[in-house]
Amino acid sequence: MEDRSDTYDVIIIGGGPAGLTAALYSARSKLKTVILDKSLTAGALAYSNRIENYPGLTNPVSGKELLSIMRTQAMGFGAEYVETQVVGMNLSGDTKEVFTMERTYSGKTLIIATGAMGRKPGIKGEGEFLGKGVSYCAICDAAFFGGKTVCIIGNSEETVKEAEVLARFAETVYLISPTNTLKVDDNHPGLKIPNIRIMLGYTPTSIEGKDIVERIRMHDCNQKEVDLELSGVFVYLHGNKPITDFLAGTLETGEDGCIPVNCMMETSVPGVFAAGDVTCTEIRQVVVAASQGCLAALAAEKYLYKRTRYRMDWAK
Amino acid sequence: MEDRSDTYDVIIIGGGPAGLTAALYSARSKLKTVILDKSLTAGALAYSNRIENYPGLTNPVSGKELLSIMRTQAMGFGAEYVETQVVGMNLSGDTKEVFTMERTYSGKTLIIATGAMGRKPGIKGEGEFLGKGVSYCAICDAAFFGGKTVCIIGNSEETVKEAEVLARFAETVYLISPTNTLKVDDNHPGLKIPNIRIMLGYTPTSIEGKDIVERIRMHDCNQKEVDLELSGVFVYLHGNKPITDFLAGTLETGEDGCIPVNCMMETSVPGVFAAGDVTCTEIRQVVVAASQGCLAALAAEKYLYKRTRYRMDWAK
Repeated sequence: MEDRSDTYDVIIIGGGPAGLTAALYSARSKLKTVILDKSLTAGALAYSNRIENYPGLTNPVSGKELLSIMRTQAMGFGAEYVETQVVGMNLSGDTKEVFTMERTYSGKTLIIATGAMGRKPGIKGEGEFLGKGVSYCAICDAAFFGGKTVCIIGNSEETVKEAEVLARFAETVYLISPTNTLKVDDNHPGLKIPNIRIMLGYTPTSIEGKDIVERIRMHDCNQKEVDLELSGVFVYLHGNKPITDFLAGTLETGEDGCIPVNCMMETSVPGVFAAGDVTCTEIRQVVVAASQGCLAALAAEKYLYKRTRYRMDWAK
Repeated sequence: MEDRSDTYDVIIIGGGPAGLTAALYSARSKLKTVILDKSLTAGALAYSNRIENYPGLTNPVSGKELLSIMRTQAMGFGAEYVETQVVGMNLSGDTKEVFTMERTYSGKTLIIATGAMGRKPGIKGEGEFLGKGVSYCAICDAAFFGGKTVCIIGNSEETVKEAEVLARFAETVYLISPTNTLKVDDNHPGLKIPNIRIMLGYTPTSIEGKDIVERIRMHDCNQKEVDLELSGVFVYLHGNKPITDFLAGTLETGEDGCIPVNCMMETSVPGVFAAGDVTCTEIRQVVVAASQGCLAALAAEKYLYKRTRYRMDWAK
């Protein structure tokens, strides 16, 4: 893992409306800014086909279009955009360290804007075998499954892309979709890879094994049971839980894993801010997430310039 | 004053980004919604020539263009837009009453989003003669000056429009601008009205009289003193104070007249919400105001349907 000496003023994790607005504001203030985004096509907004309630739209747009506009805007002001997955962090020092598979990013401040598409273990055995064959990150763990048989469960574009990653290592990748269609173009390159086998309309019911994963059990739409012998299960089903698993205890989280913030988006760690659906917010709307991104960037700027700090005023 | 029986679900005072976003959300939820806006061309955003930091813009736009898009969007979902000035209100009952010069509006909920372009009395004698010849509302008070001489101080499009209103009643209207240009097109109809006399580059220094206004004293750019005998002084200079004078004590306000709200934009009166720069907020940004408008509308909807109320969690 390479560690570069150039430190960012602001590291932003997440490329949704909160992260991109934070980047727009911080880059426009001439702060050295990087956005670490898991995927261009994952996230609650990217999955929305039609947005008409974001103020300032002349016509309804797709979530992907709106994200693309916001990303172009942030990059236009100088923000760096990197498609990468954050796997951990160290928040104990003045300089915050963010780990990806490729390198470590160092930042004077950190804004967490990873959204809420996570879910609690929902398949029988999923929690029990987490780290023993069950994984939520193909990029992180694919290499452990060289020459083995694995499956990936989901129906999104992200699922298909992650299946491609797995197919480079595993002998066979079963792509199991609970729905009868996948949310990708019919000519998506991932659908043509010979060692990816697509199973549509199958609902996983349990993950089984002795000490490590040995098989997955599922049923089709006629409730007919099917078993597959395999070593790895990659789960890409979407929920609405804040995505904070990568924090691994480095930051205080609330019920359901959400990050508590005050009205200036400060977390329990000085210099670390959170914005958007990952916070303990009741309202999940694009404009609210964007506003929180703006506030987080302004708070980060204030922190950097050691201006008077905002009063800690906890308000979930 | 006419009082109609049809009650609105949501009355919104103010047609800036907070008010228009509130209208967009409440109208889209099929709530009977009206926006009472003092002027299409007044307000902090309307005065901004170039906005580039609102997330979602493909190109920089003028504040007026952005407002026009948001207004079209809100009206597209069924919100009613009325250009009128609110002069008072009654918040004591379950139904909130909002008074304009033309009629009384009744609403089950009220969202105040009047922004922050107000100012404290700044001209010597301005505070002393308020209501005795000094006024901040031509539409409200013009009729008291039939056949008299008055002045209006300011340089905005709003000032010129209000001068037109005054010219229908007063014999002579002096339009006094501290700057050497007015912020209107050269062919603005207000500039061609014979009883409006335009004085550019004059700074008012004091308003004088015995019991009521009798004269205004000012100096030109060479510090030369000039006096005008008149009965009325209409002040349209802009500051950055929350605009809450029309509340006249019906609602709790904080320092500088701002309205304290909690994170769901609730004020001290149930059913009354506030959003945007009029609230006791430190951050005045379009996206933040829009987000607050969204939250206020969702809170109003929740209040209307008597859903579980949000915990009161005061956070200035």
